[in-house]
This record gives sequence, C-alpha cells and structure tokens, in this order.
Amino acid sequence: MKKKNTLIAATKGKTTSFSETIKTEVVCPNDTNPMGILQGGRLVQWMDIAAAVCAQTHADGICVTASIDTVRFFHSAKVGDILTIKAKITRAFNTSMEIMVEASVRDVFGNKPQALCLAYFTFVAIDSKAKKRSVPPIALVSEEDKRNFELAGLRKEKNI
Amino acid sequence: MKKKNTLIAATKGKTTSFSETIKTEVVCPNDTNPMGILQGGRLVQWMDIAAAVCAQTHADGICVTASIDTVRFFHSAKVGDILTIKAKITRAFNTSMEIMVEASVRDVFGNKPQALCLAYFTFVAIDSKAKKRSVPPIALVSEEDKRNFELAGLRKEKNI
Amino acid sequence: MKKKNTLIAATKGKTTSFSETIKTEVVCPNDTNPMGILQGGRLVQWMDIAAAVCAQTHADGICVTASIDTVRFFHSAKVGDILTIKAKITRAFNTSMEIMVEASVRDVFGNKPQALCLAYFTFVAIDSKAKKRSVPPIALVSEEDKRNFELAGLRKEKNI
Amino acid sequence: MKKKNTLIAATKGKTTSFSETIKTEVVCPNDTNPMGILQGGRLVQWMDIAAAVCAQTHADGICVTASIDTVRFFHSAKVGDILTIKAKITRAFNTSMEIMVEASVRDVFGNKPQALCLAYFTFVAIDSKAKKRSVPPIALVSEEDKRNFELAGLRKEKNI
Amino acid sequence: MKKKNTLIAATKGKTTSFSETIKTEVVCPNDTNPMGILQGGRLVQWMDIAAAVCAQTHADGICVTASIDTVRFFHSAKVGDILTIKAKITRAFNTSMEIMVEASVRDVFGNKPQALCLAYFTFVAIDSKAKKRSVPPIALVSEEDKRNFELAGLRKEKNI
Amino acid sequence: MKKKNTLIAATKGKTTSFSETIKTEVVCPNDTNPMGILQGGRLVQWMDIAAAVCAQTHADGICVTASIDTVRFFHSAKVGDILTIKAKITRAFNTSMEIMVEASVRDVFGNKPQALCLAYFTFVAIDSKAKKRSVPPIALVSEEDKRNFELAGLRKEKNI
Repeated sequence: MKKKNTLIAATKGKTTSFSETIKTEVVCPNDTNPMGILQGGRLVQWMDIAAAVCAQTHADGICVTASIDTVRFFHSAKVGDILTIKAKITRAFNTSMEIMVEASVRDVFGNKPQALCLAYFTFVAIDSKAKKRSVPPIALVSEEDKRNFELAGLRKEKNI
Repeated sequence: MKKKNTLIAATKGKTTSFSETIKTEVVCPNDTNPMGILQGGRLVQWMDIAAAVCAQTHADGICVTASIDTVRFFHSAKVGDILTIKAKITRAFNTSMEIMVEASVRDVFGNKPQALCLAYFTFVAIDSKAKKRSVPPIALVSEEDKRNFELAGLRKEKNI
Repeated sequence: MKKKNTLIAATKGKTTSFSETIKTEVVCPNDTNPMGILQGGRLVQWMDIAAAVCAQTHADGICVTASIDTVRFFHSAKVGDILTIKAKITRAFNTSMEIMVEASVRDVFGNKPQALCLAYFTFVAIDSKAKKRSVPPIALVSEEDKRNFELAGLRKEKNI
Repeated sequence: MKKKNTLIAATKGKTTSFSETIKTEVVCPNDTNPMGILQGGRLVQWMDIAAAVCAQTHADGICVTASIDTVRFFHSAKVGDILTIKAKITRAFNTSMEIMVEASVRDVFGNKPQALCLAYFTFVAIDSKAKKRSVPPIALVSEEDKRNFELAGLRKEKNI
Repeated sequence: MKKKNTLIAATKGKTTSFSETIKTEVVCPNDTNPMGILQGGRLVQWMDIAAAVCAQTHADGICVTASIDTVRFFHSAKVGDILTIKAKITRAFNTSMEIMVEASVRDVFGNKPQALCLAYFTFVAIDSKAKKRSVPPIALVSEEDKRNFELAGLRKEKNI
Repeated sequence: MKKKNTLIAATKGKTTSFSETIKTEVVCPNDTNPMGILQGGRLVQWMDIAAAVCAQTHADGICVTASIDTVRFFHSAKVGDILTIKAKITRAFNTSMEIMVEASVRDVFGNKPQALCLAYFTFVAIDSKAKKRSVPPIALVSEEDKRNFELAGLRKEKNI
C-alpha cells in the first residue's frame, strides 16, 4: 500500500534525466600510483563531485555527502585514459537522495570503453543554516527508473 | 565543385555526435580572482581538456592544440556555480580538426543556465613519433552539422 | 577448526601496529563546498592514501584499491579544521587486506576532537607485472586485534 | 585627427614598462598530455594570470578577462622545460585594455629559447561593485610602443 | 638563575607529546624535478603544514610562520616513496614557539627508513585581529625535552 | 691571495644577470591559512622553484636543493596580493651555488610593494647519473655582485 502511494507521488516529481550529470576526466600523472595506475580515492573524489551536482540539481540547493556504499572497482585506468562518469538519482527520500554513479574508462586509440567503477552515494539537502530540508520526489518514467527506485529502497533497509 | 566532393567524402566519416564530449565542473575558490569571479584562463584550461578528448575520440589517437581562436566570455561565474562544457567537432581537415566548445553556467538554486563562453580550438593529430597524421572525415548528418562545417572553412581561410 | 589454524598462522605474521599510518591534514578552501563544508569525496581521497600506505607497509610492495565499503560521515569539517586520519590493517586474506580508516576532526581553538568518518578499504597486493601476489598474515596481539579480525571476516562473507 | 589626439593623451599616461610582468614556470607532469607535451590550455591559464597582473598593475584595481584572441602555438614544451611568460599592455581603451602575452621555452641544458606561444587578451577594469570603470591611458615611449598601439586598434576594429 | 625559573614554569605547561604531529605523504610526479627527485621546496611546504598544526595545537589558536632556519636535506626521495614528517615543539617563548620538524623516507619494498630532512620553524601565535598573543609554556618531561629546550635557546640567541 | 685568484677566475664566468629569474604569483585561497594569510611553506615552495631555475640556468643542467638557510618573513600577504620573487646567484663553489631569493608583495590597488621574505638556497649540480658535477664560476661585474660574493663565503664558513 504505502509503496504504491509513494510511486504515485513520485510520478509528480522531477525526472531522473533532468538531473543526470556527465563528467569527463583524463587521468593525469598525479592521479596515479607509482605503477601509473589510477588511485581509487581520486576516482571516488571525481564521482562525489558528479554525484553532488546531480543531487543539487534535483534538490535546487546545497547537498552534502552522508554516506557512500559498496564502491567496487572492476578495472584499472592508466595515465592518459579517458573517464566518463555518469551520476543519476535513483530515489528521493524525505531529506536524502540516493545517487548511483557509474564510471567507464577507454584509451585514446579507439578501443571499447570498459566498466571501471560503480558506487552508491547518499546526499542530504541542507538549507542556508545547514539544517536538513525536504527534497522533491522523482518522476518514474522508464522501467529502469522503477527498478532503480525499488533497489534503492532495499539498499536503504539493509544499511539501517 | 570542390566543396561538394568534400561533403560526399565527409558523409563516409564519423558523426559529430560520436566524439561529442561533456564535462561538468564546479567552480572552486582557487579558480577565482579575489572578488570570487571565475578566472578566464582557468575556464580555457577546462575547455581545452574537453576539446582534446573530443579530438582524440574522433582521431583515435593523441592530438595537440595548434591554436585557439576568438575566446569570448559572455557572463561571469562564481564559487559553487556549476559549469557544463560541451565540445563538438565542426570539421576535419587533413591532419587537423576544428573543435567548437561552448560553456554554460548555472547556480545550485535552480535558476536557468546562462551562456558563459564560446571558443574554437584547432587540434592536430600526431603519431607515436609526434609526426602529424591524417584524421578521418566527419559524416554530416544534421543541418547544424552542415552549417558548422561551412563556417569552420570560412574561419580557416580568414586565419591563414 | 579452520578459524583456529588461521589464528595460529596469524600470530607468526606482522603486527597491526607495524603498518599503522597517521596522516594529518588541514582543510583548505578548495576541499570544501560553497558553504565551506569539507567534501566527502576529498576526505575519501585522503583516507585512501593513508590506507594505501598502511597496506603497502604490511605487504612490502605496491597495492591497489579493490573496493571501499560503507563510508559513513558522522560530522562536518570546515576550512582550517585539523583532520587526523588513522589507517590500520584488520585482516590479511590470501592476496588482499582489509584496512579500517578512522578520521577525526578538531578546530584550532583546543576543542575536543570529534569522530568524522569511518570506512573499510580492501587492497590487493600486486607484483611488478600487476599480477596479484600473496601477503603475509597479521600477528594478533591485543583483544582489539582479535575482534577486528573476526569482524573483517564477517564483512567479507556479507559482501561476497 | 582623432588618432593624433589619442596619442597626445596617451603620453600623459603610464608607461608600458611600468606594468610589464614576467612569470617563470617549470613544466610539471600534470601539465602535459600522455606523450609528455605541455597542454595548450594549461599554458593559456598561466598566460592569463600574467596578463591579469599586468592589467591590474596598469589599472590599479581588479580586472577580468573579456576575450582572448588568436592564441598561436609555435613549438612544443616538455616536462622540466623552463617557460618565460611576458605580459605587456599594448593599448588602453575606455574601460578595457589589450595585453599582449608572449611565452618562450628553453630546456635546462643551455640551449637557446624558442618562441612558444603568442596571444592577445582583453581585460576590463571593474570597481568593488563589479561595474566597469575607466582606466588610465598609456604613455607611448618607444617605436615599439607606438606600433603595438596602432595594431591593437586594428585588431579591435576587426573583432567588433 | 633565570634559566632555573624558566624550567620550573615550564613544568606547569603542556607536554611536547600533546602537540606532536605526524603527517604521512606519498611523493607524486608533480612533487619532483625532471629526474624524478622530490623538490626541496615541496617538502618544506609539507613540513610547514605539520609545524603549523603542532604550534596551533600547543597555542590553541592560529599561528603564522615567522622564520625557518637551517633546512638540511640528507637524502633524496623519488616518486612513490613514503614520507613520515614529525613536528615537535622544543620551546615556547613569550609569543613564539620553536618547532623541530624531522622527515624520513622509505620505499614501498620494506627497506629501512632514511633521514631525509631536518628544519627548525618559528611560529608566532596571533589573535582574531592578527595581533601577537602569549602562548602557554611547555612541561619538560624527558631528558630529550630538556636538551631540545636548551638548544632552542642557543639557536634563538645565535639568530638575533 | 686565494681570494684574489678566485675573483679573477670568477670574472671569466657567467654574469649573475644571465641567470637572474623573476617569478610573479598571485596568492590564491588554497595558499593561505584560515585567516587568509599566505602560508610560509607555500612561499618557500615558489622561491625554491625560482631558485632552481636560476641555478640550472647558471649550471646548464639539473640541480637539487641541498639546504635552505635563514628564511625570514618580514610581512604578511593575503588572497589576491601579487608576489614578485627574484632569484639571483651570489657565488658558485665547486659543485654548489648559493642563490639569494627575495620576495616582495603588493596589493592590486597601486600601493607600494613591501619586502615579504628573504632566503638563501644552496643547490648542487648533478649529471644524468645523479652524481655531483662542477659548475662554472660567476663573473663579478657590479659592486653589489662583489659584496654578495664575499657574504656568501662568510655564510658558508658559518654553516660548515
């Protein structure tokens, strides 16, 4: 019952494509370890910026990172490689939002992009006095939107 | 005559959307002058990175900046503002490409994006010995593609 | 049975204090959002560096981040605040290690430090050809060492 | 007629050597592409800072970049090379100034410097409320000053 | 006589271990010269940050660098090396403190750390109007504390 | 006797103006402490780069910092202030050189520059195998050159 209502409310909100954020980066020497492999923490920093832009675009105001879950690295990246970082909102709760961030990597010689990293960020919207404030719901348009929405709820329950 | 042939050749090439590159940045304190206004040179640096990714994606190899023309700043940006930088190839010559880069700016409070800057970069493709090498033509799909292609030719003639 | 053997093996390894790593940082303007609050991603980058030093000290060689789990932010930090980041190994598996990283924050006016962030990093040791290689076990000395060791095992099972 | 008057007014102003600015930089790994060649956009950022110091010294106040014209790269620079960037005012208009910036490059082994880049920046002087304000004229002392002054006028006409 | 009184006063102060600060850094490509050797100035910047944290922890407020004396480099460090920087107060004067900073370097392959650099920083405590303010004395606990305290006095006399 | 010979030898060398290096910097937010005052260590980093360029220009090869002596800060600098850093060789020994670096600061409103910092750096010239190598003598042209030369000798004796 409750879940159904939420879905209806959600369809009145903002679409997930409205706030989708793409950030392209090129791996520089200072982003790597002595073997020239991109450092995990540096990638998370870029993903966090993309996620913050996504959350702030959805919430029309400043948002701060509350948690990051299950950051998985699938591949390595080296100096000169091109990263495409995509941040997309999966679900808006009362004052928080889950943002899914996917990063892929490709070299400059035209080879196929590879999945690099996947992570889920939770952001909280704050007002000018740094107090939590409510955020608009998301409008579920596609089947993918709905699946992401359901899974975001399951991840939240698991982490409480 | 010559122009028509070029257009035919171009339709066999890669589309401009294949290499289109989007880079999202947030203005940080070190990117600004003492009044908190984004420095022009810092913006050009970001635009150059987006343009290089675009050129390298089209050319499937390393490219270097040969010239930058008529960088115009239409608006100012301040700390915390979100920049969207779009780089798109307009025309491929023998070993060089013209990349058009547009930047827009918006704040985090949901106001409409404003045009921030427009610039044209020329990149040259190089091989592993840093020698110039030829690049594939572009496939002109839309009316906008064709207009950009013509104007790129006029800009090249003017600058020679 | 198996667990007991592991514990015995572990006591022949290197202590957790041997590789414990402390990193002090001061929050600078570029590390913060427009409200002057430290960005979560920037903190994770620093924690990743501390964790990498800890893992590499234990493994006597290069290590790369394989995953980061459940990064929780408990407090906010602002420009000028002093961060103390402590990285400690909790368990060595065959080729991977779990590193627990705790960050605390204090201002420059002598107020008590506050817990800022807690995260678990998994690093994999690699050889000069970037192949996984085995790492030494840890020697469990204190009760805390033993508790951390058990919990690391539970976290690993949960994440598989 | 009008041109002559402008020249007389200019001789009452500040000399071009008063605000001439020299900035020495050493190319670091992060300033280069994967082949170790200095990125064009990074050089423009340094040139913009030198130009801003030059404009602000002439105008005794904050100035912002309005446009950059015809940035030409003549040579490449690599990690460890020494750059000498010289910014010089060519002409003061009502509220704007044209600044010519030349960059040369040399290695550390005593070889002769090479011309690296030439660009023309236009800066606008602003007051504490970010409103445009008038700037002092320049005093034309040398033949080079006069030539630069004339050419700056021609460039302005061409770009309007 | 005077010296004895100072010692008694000192024992009422804060211990040197209370403000001791450890900062771990990893040498990145941009920190080095073209031969991959850590730049001296970059190391001094890190040492200055550790020293500032140490001074501010002792003084419970903002402190600024007044002078740096006899910075000696004993060894070189290269990309990927791990630096351990230790800052310790040696003596508190009226409004200033001497902070001794030692840096050591080790590689990631388990070789013994080497002494890298030693320097003495003098910091002055300031209030919210940037006026000098008095700092608490140090409590001399160990023989090493006492020796450092004496030598700091000799260094001060030599430098006046 | 010996001193006179040295002077004669010196007149056959390179002038001090040949290698004089000027570096202009603008203070950015990340270069300052929480009160907006330029950090001493950051200034030393810039001075070290200017000194390295000066030493390398004199020695026609890579040089590394061996020591830094008596860094004195005379003034403070704040965000937006313009720094002029001048590095000049005072004396060439067998394989080392003393470089005097002076920094001055001015605001953007036309006020007079103030002395900011003075420091003496000692650099050692190295060959491609990182072995010390001899450097050319300096040609003493002005009275100031001679005075700096004598004082550099006295400073060296004092520090041995």
